Amino acid sequence: MTNKYYIGLDLGGTKIATGITDTNGKLLATVKIPTQAQDGYEMVTRRMGDTIEEVMQKSGANASDIIAIGVCAPGAIDITNGIVRGSPNLKWHNVPLKKIIEERFHIPTYLDNDANIAGLGENRFGAGKGSKHMLYMTVSTGIGGGIILDGKIYRGATFGAGEIGHITINMNGPRCGCGNYGCVEALASGPAIARTAKEALINYPDSLLNSYPEITAKEVAEAARKGDQLSIEVINKAAGYIGATLANLVNTLNPDLIVIGGGVSQMGDLLLIPIRDEVRKRAIKSFSENLKIVPAELGGDVGVMGAIALAQCSGEV
Amino acid sequence: MTNKYYIGLDLGGTKIATGITDTNGKLLATVKIPTQAQDGYEMVTRRMGDTIEEVMQKSGANASDIIAIGVCAPGAIDITNGIVRGSPNLKWHNVPLKKIIEERFHIPTYLDNDANIAGLGENRFGAGKGSKHMLYMTVSTGIGGGIILDGKIYRGATFGAGEIGHITINMNGPRCGCGNYGCVEALASGPAIARTAKEALINYPDSLLNSYPEITAKEVAEAARKGDQLSIEVINKAAGYIGATLANLVNTLNPDLIVIGGGVSQMGDLLLIPIRDEVRKRAIKSFSENLKIVPAELGGDVGVMGAIALAQCSGEV
Repeated sequence: MTNKYYIGLDLGGTKIATGITDTNGKLLATVKIPTQAQDGYEMVTRRMGDTIEEVMQKSGANASDIIAIGVCAPGAIDITNGIVRGSPNLKWHNVPLKKIIEERFHIPTYLDNDANIAGLGENRFGAGKGSKHMLYMTVSTGIGGGIILDGKIYRGATFGAGEIGHITINMNGPRCGCGNYGCVEALASGPAIARTAKEALINYPDSLLNSYPEITAKEVAEAARKGDQLSIEVINKAAGYIGATLANLVNTLNPDLIVIGGGVSQMGDLLLIPIRDEVRKRAIKSFSENLKIVPAELGGDVGVMGAIALAQCSGEV
Repeated sequence: MTNKYYIGLDLGGTKIATGITDTNGKLLATVKIPTQAQDGYEMVTRRMGDTIEEVMQKSGANASDIIAIGVCAPGAIDITNGIVRGSPNLKWHNVPLKKIIEERFHIPTYLDNDANIAGLGENRFGAGKGSKHMLYMTVSTGIGGGIILDGKIYRGATFGAGEIGHITINMNGPRCGCGNYGCVEALASGPAIARTAKEALINYPDSLLNSYPEITAKEVAEAARKGDQLSIEVINKAAGYIGATLANLVNTLNPDLIVIGGGVSQMGDLLLIPIRDEVRKRAIKSFSENLKIVPAELGGDVGVMGAIALAQCSGEV
């Protein structure tokens, strides 16, 4: 009997990451290249295919030994037909990605969006192993989510479920990129944290932040770790918004686990502890008692591993 | 072949309503009696059983022809074991309701909470027929919800899902009965509407509301229908809170339908139109375009019919 394999491909706005695993999900080889989205979808999909060939070569697998390919892409996806309906990051519109890959490799290919796949990846291979009802929240430039219910990705009526960054938490809050006001993304994403810190800086002339030439969420975290009062307050405030959002989701969905990933979550306990406090303060007690809130585990591999999980289930998840 | 039947029982804080249907869900007989919860659970469960006997007699059905009994009760329910874990309305604590009914009738009995069952009832027999991903919201003394995903009740990790009345919509809002601040229930339930109107009355000496000896949400609706400015504003404000809450749920769960029931929803378009406006304003456009928001259809029968639906699926829903 020959060995069998799965391939997972994470298509992002800046990079393409592709991995190949055995049937147990053990990663055998990976390839990472820049997306160069400006070259257009035909070039990008050709490059994607090339990374698939490369991981096969690296691991000694033949195309006939690949059971399935999983792909995650940013944007709105037509899951049934494997089409990227629209992706602002890639500037793609109705690209039949499943068909393009299947025509080149003749291997069954499954497609889903990056937030769903990150949630699935953490659920199958990361911090969410064993969780039945799990929320995944990513906090970085934006805030997004993947919802795992009864062990499966919950996608909703038009495959859009999980847009938890656009939960209104303050009806009269700042305008969000989505057009709404007071979304948690407009209040607690990386750029929102940096903006809040910069706006408050005038009242904190002694803040450590004044010594940085540029202020992003990373500098705010660094200053907070050094005891900077303003930075600590800004992070606590963002954590309060995130915690209130998660409490809403807890009261609605009664999950057993919340996994928090994304660049901003690398702040670790600085962000996680006040998030947990806010959830405990706001959610129904019997729900929060049965709930854990933990950091993501897969880091940069989450897209590849989630895509592997999608391939393993033949998209039936 | 003899005819077969289902029985549905709606246990409420003030009344017990019981119905019997044929296998097509056609209601053949109903009985309604006061709960008199103060008599304790043994008396109440005996009365419940008596209503079951009564609808069987009324419809000429024998116990051996009843396929299953569905029951809905207010409070926290252990679905797996059919136990009312806690019900503030009934002052019950760990009452093994399924067992009590099965021991008397030897008919398989299934139990769930009233909000889930109302959602299921509307989904199977009412305004939600044909909907796959449906949210049910009841607005009355409190605000509650039932979530139907992929055609089934979604219950969550500890059977608590759907507590959408305790979604925080204004982080610094008034204290809610649950202990949290700014829940939609504290801002837009019937009592909240009445309270808001009464508080504002001092600034509206000419308001029609001044002519009522008592002000509840019902009087506010009546005055609004007569053109009373204060009442219209109060209802629009409540609708705004409800609409923002629903927009959060739309962005999270991407449902195809929202059904709104409960006493306050009898305001009809007075409440529904500004709710729809707020959802459209706040939710992601492609989600709200594929969504309908409609009033409940089953009225006072929703509990009985939902319990029938639960019985029909042997609780497997």
